[in-house]
Amino acid sequence: MSIRLKQLVDSLGGQLIGDADIEIFGIAPLNDATVTEVTFLSNPKFRIQATQSQAAAIILSAEDDVIVGASYRGARIIASNPYVYFARTAQFFAALNAPVVPAGVHPSAVVDCSAQVAMTAFVGANAVIEAGAIIGDGVYIGSGSVIGRAVKIGAMTHLHANVTIYAECEIGRRAIVHSGAVIGADGFGFANDGGKWIKIPQIGRVLIGDDVEIGANTTIDRGAMTDTVIEEGVKLDNQIQIAHNCHIGAHTAIAACAGIAGSAKIGKYCSIGGAAMIHGHITIVDHVHVSAGTLALRSILEPGQYTGFYPIAKHGDWEKSAALVRNLSTTREKIRALEKTIKQLTEKTHEQS
Amino acid sequence: MSIRLKQLVDSLGGQLIGDADIEIFGIAPLNDATVTEVTFLSNPKFRIQATQSQAAAIILSAEDDVIVGASYRGARIIASNPYVYFARTAQFFAALNAPVVPAGVHPSAVVDCSAQVAMTAFVGANAVIEAGAIIGDGVYIGSGSVIGRAVKIGAMTHLHANVTIYAECEIGRRAIVHSGAVIGADGFGFANDGGKWIKIPQIGRVLIGDDVEIGANTTIDRGAMTDTVIEEGVKLDNQIQIAHNCHIGAHTAIAACAGIAGSAKIGKYCSIGGAAMIHGHITIVDHVHVSAGTLALRSILEPGQYTGFYPIAKHGDWEKSAALVRNLSTTREKIRALEKTIKQLTEKTHEQS
Amino acid sequence: MSIRLKQLVDSLGGQLIGDADIEIFGIAPLNDATVTEVTFLSNPKFRIQATQSQAAAIILSAEDDVIVGASYRGARIIASNPYVYFARTAQFFAALNAPVVPAGVHPSAVVDCSAQVAMTAFVGANAVIEAGAIIGDGVYIGSGSVIGRAVKIGAMTHLHANVTIYAECEIGRRAIVHSGAVIGADGFGFANDGGKWIKIPQIGRVLIGDDVEIGANTTIDRGAMTDTVIEEGVKLDNQIQIAHNCHIGAHTAIAACAGIAGSAKIGKYCSIGGAAMIHGHITIVDHVHVSAGTLALRSILEPGQYTGFYPIAKHGDWEKSAALVRNLSTTREKIRALEKTIKQLTEKTHEQS
Repeated sequence: MSIRLKQLVDSLGGQLIGDADIEIFGIAPLNDATVTEVTFLSNPKFRIQATQSQAAAIILSAEDDVIVGASYRGARIIASNPYVYFARTAQFFAALNAPVVPAGVHPSAVVDCSAQVAMTAFVGANAVIEAGAIIGDGVYIGSGSVIGRAVKIGAMTHLHANVTIYAECEIGRRAIVHSGAVIGADGFGFANDGGKWIKIPQIGRVLIGDDVEIGANTTIDRGAMTDTVIEEGVKLDNQIQIAHNCHIGAHTAIAACAGIAGSAKIGKYCSIGGAAMIHGHITIVDHVHVSAGTLALRSILEPGQYTGFYPIAKHGDWEKSAALVRNLSTTREKIRALEKTIKQLTEKTHEQS
Repeated sequence: MSIRLKQLVDSLGGQLIGDADIEIFGIAPLNDATVTEVTFLSNPKFRIQATQSQAAAIILSAEDDVIVGASYRGARIIASNPYVYFARTAQFFAALNAPVVPAGVHPSAVVDCSAQVAMTAFVGANAVIEAGAIIGDGVYIGSGSVIGRAVKIGAMTHLHANVTIYAECEIGRRAIVHSGAVIGADGFGFANDGGKWIKIPQIGRVLIGDDVEIGANTTIDRGAMTDTVIEEGVKLDNQIQIAHNCHIGAHTAIAACAGIAGSAKIGKYCSIGGAAMIHGHITIVDHVHVSAGTLALRSILEPGQYTGFYPIAKHGDWEKSAALVRNLSTTREKIRALEKTIKQLTEKTHEQS
Repeated sequence: MSIRLKQLVDSLGGQLIGDADIEIFGIAPLNDATVTEVTFLSNPKFRIQATQSQAAAIILSAEDDVIVGASYRGARIIASNPYVYFARTAQFFAALNAPVVPAGVHPSAVVDCSAQVAMTAFVGANAVIEAGAIIGDGVYIGSGSVIGRAVKIGAMTHLHANVTIYAECEIGRRAIVHSGAVIGADGFGFANDGGKWIKIPQIGRVLIGDDVEIGANTTIDRGAMTDTVIEEGVKLDNQIQIAHNCHIGAHTAIAACAGIAGSAKIGKYCSIGGAAMIHGHITIVDHVHVSAGTLALRSILEPGQYTGFYPIAKHGDWEKSAALVRNLSTTREKIRALEKTIKQLTEKTHEQS
């Protein structure tokens, strides 16, 4: 499906310079965009590429337009934040092209008679809704997903195929949960009785706010006695592990393969890099950025970026530096010995002079 | 549901001081517990909080009771290991509140006619039991789980929703397997034929002992020619990868996101921290503790704690230390040069004196 | 089922020395093989074990046969690459012992009327095939797997149970996808609008070549605007994350728990170790080997092995070396001070002499 450029600007705002009637079929990157697509410029270093783009129209800042506008042949949309404008444009086309999902429960789905499924919700093939679950308006439950007892899912939330939600967990409105995600499995809680592990039943829940996105195969454990909480607007990539009783502040983004250990508290507007690991029972304040591959062992109480991973090198060079890292105490001893010798030498030399 | 405090002590032992008839509805942490809940004190540093707890009763050691007992207003249960006693109390309430699961096979489940399912077992909606599988007494198979050909599952084992067990694997009694776990997928075995990888069929099984717990989205690969073995009482958190032909000793606990490479042998009573990685074909003896985020490259033949991750720092500080780590050989050369110069100087100074 | 040794050599080649009519029931490692099994020797250091093996026959190189052949009592198959020959032998037996899978769609599976499923394909119990999907000849779709709208799956590809393929993705021929794998979930793409994250719809696909193997619970995200590409012969272990718009070159092997961030381009014939992490938007050329637990932050433009992880040590030793790593700038300052002092001393000593 296509639109006129005018429709886009009428809907999203911004200042249009050029032909408002151009027919647009979609979006594309600067280099790939064709004469029927919209593109965007958000990084000034691609200005020259922008002037040469074949795109029908370009979204850019007023600042970049001063340079690009002179030589670019297509229409321009001036926006205060071109990347955000591009994201909304992409959403506009995605909505246009989305397959229509009819409301209703697929005949192969199994819905417990005590569950409440809104008339406008969709429940896919072979999905299972257990007793007492409440499925809100416009919710989409993908094929093969299993919604546990007494789960609540807010309006317009989209669960892809093969998602699992354990009993009593709650998900807000407009959330997106990708396939293979498991919400509400037992936290890892055991008491050690002479070497053997005695399970501590995990009776807390997982509470997930509005507008949260949860990636494929990500796991969020239920709390031990109280709840695990994911605040509104949090974005979780794939294969993340969030342990019991964690609290993730609003609008924090966590990249793939990260792990958050039990009872860790992460503030709002943080970012956690891929494969970063956050230790249990620590606090990270708002606006902290933990780099990829970094293990945060202690609380971080000051905003900023924090990093800690071993620098990559050719294997032979790494072997040398790793051996020296192991022996840094020897290095320190050598330096101390040198300092002592030099002190003695200096004294001696002074005496002699 | 509620109980009298007496019922708890009658069932679990310990010395009760105070009103045996108090009505108890559940458990809660020291600070959150209300007058109808039991709490516990396992760490002496929370003694003052314990004296102020609103809980109806507290589980604590005789040693802590000497201090806490004087001012705490509720009932006290003296136990030799309060944390274990608390775990058993939590299990007591969990059993009380557990929804009753009727035995039987849900009409939407698909059970092969050659599979044997105990009369007392439960098979959930849209679950699949393939040919020749044997499902023991009181086993719970969650909705959407797929049990492969000739799998054996021991009595009272609980598989949550959307678990996958490949053909011929065996799980012991009273095990718990969380959603998304995959037991028995092919190990990663290939022979390299001039750059191309030739698959080595993986014909071993996975053998899992009694009382093992396996976390959400954890994967345990089948052996190449012989079996992958998880001994009794092992506890595996979420998103752990255990490769083909590993052997994990009894009562070892492994935290989330850890990876155990092929043919590694880990002893009994070990603990492996979150995101730790154990190299292939190495041996780790009993009672070894590998810290989070640590890569164990060689065998560990002596009990103790082992660690190896780069310390986190503000990004700028990390950049400096990382650059220096890369150049440690230069540092070593400088020290050697200094040592040489000083030796010469010392000799010269001695000559002069 | 069993075969005569002759049948194996007729099928796979190699030079047979000994009784061609021995009956063989399977394969086994050197130490475990019995008189009805074939074994192999690929590492010369096991020559002595080879001479003592009970195996009916051994696969080995001409070079090793000079030593082993003299004293080993069974039949020998001389092969140029014994490990590859062993892999093919294992495949030979696996094919012999594989349960016969009848073609057809299980009555409990849900196949959209607009999907095309080849007559020779198999669709397992409670699997779901959505609108417009095309399932090729001899394809196996495991129980509970969900194949999205307009997905294409090439001939002879095998999807195990509980696999999820999102809409529009394509998989080549003879691929193997293990349980819990999720192909085509949304990439992690958001624009930041004053602290809140605005989703960028992910409209690219995942394109997977022929002969690719994908491990259990591995996730491969669809591209943002263009496609994520996995070339032919790539082998992916379990729990790997491949982000949007990555490109993985042919015959590259990636071990478990590795993560490849967005738009990374990895060459052909590479190997990426377990839990290694590849940064976004970097390029790794052909024939690069990244060690386990290593984070590759920048492009690698020269073949070779690259490593970077902190060496494991006893915890107390690590604490010391980690403290020193944090303070390497202090070490450098001390060395500079020493250098300066020594320079002054040297000058002074020269003056005095």
